[in-house]
Amino acid sequence: MVTVKTIRIAHLAIVVEDIQTALDFWRDAVGLEMAELRDVPAEAARVAFLPVGDSEIELVQPTTQDSGMAKFLAKRGAGMHHVCLEVDDIEAAMEQLKARGVRLIHEAPLTGADGRRYAFIHPQSATGVLVELYETVK
Amino acid sequence: MVTVKTIRIAHLAIVVEDIQTALDFWRDAVGLEMAELRDVPAEAARVAFLPVGDSEIELVQPTTQDSGMAKFLAKRGAGMHHVCLEVDDIEAAMEQLKARGVRLIHEAPLTGADGRRYAFIHPQSATGVLVELYETVK
Repeated sequence: MVTVKTIRIAHLAIVVEDIQTALDFWRDAVGLEMAELRDVPAEAARVAFLPVGDSEIELVQPTTQDSGMAKFLAKRGAGMHHVCLEVDDIEAAMEQLKARGVRLIHEAPLTGADGRRYAFIHPQSATGVLVELYETVK
Repeated sequence: MVTVKTIRIAHLAIVVEDIQTALDFWRDAVGLEMAELRDVPAEAARVAFLPVGDSEIELVQPTTQDSGMAKFLAKRGAGMHHVCLEVDDIEAAMEQLKARGVRLIHEAPLTGADGRRYAFIHPQSATGVLVELYETVK
């Protein structure tokens, strides 16, 4: 019996046409602080990070036309793209998901540029939501 | 100059076809705890509340065909519906939003069955995201 601890909503990713216009709303009108704005070449995106509580709103502006997020934006328009949950043990979490017949996008965890391990669950198995899991840095 | 404090993501609401199937994923496969499952007649919905960190995932199954969420479900399928941010002063928050030209769905805060004050921001002004604000209970 695997017991997975889900710690928090690590972030809610919102895909946007233009990050400056998005900041007019999320930072200047809603009043969130922007911790960081940076290019993330691995994701072909420019990303603004706005912490709130123990979570974060991430505003993602695709910088190419062919990434998954660029295609989502072209097809559905700006809006919520995925939610990321932090887990204490990503392998245990993925094992538990597989045991329940959940369809994963990645069969094994990937490792990000920052060393963090992550994987995506297919929305088909997740009530239409694209869910990212991401492991606590140890 | 108004200074609004945004405290946390109070909840992320996910509209689902069937709450039991949704719990198979979010509770049994992901491993979130379900704090409560109840009918919310004011929203024409059955709602499961799953706390995670300082936030909550809310699974919402419409119980009629004519609510906003039922229409969203019929048109777009299951998925993320809105994000709710807790603010310390909802009137100050709404004043700040109006001053920035943000379109609100409610011009003044509403009061829920539980006494909590809330209002929705129009997605047109919010990078395609339906945003709820909800005030800390004092």
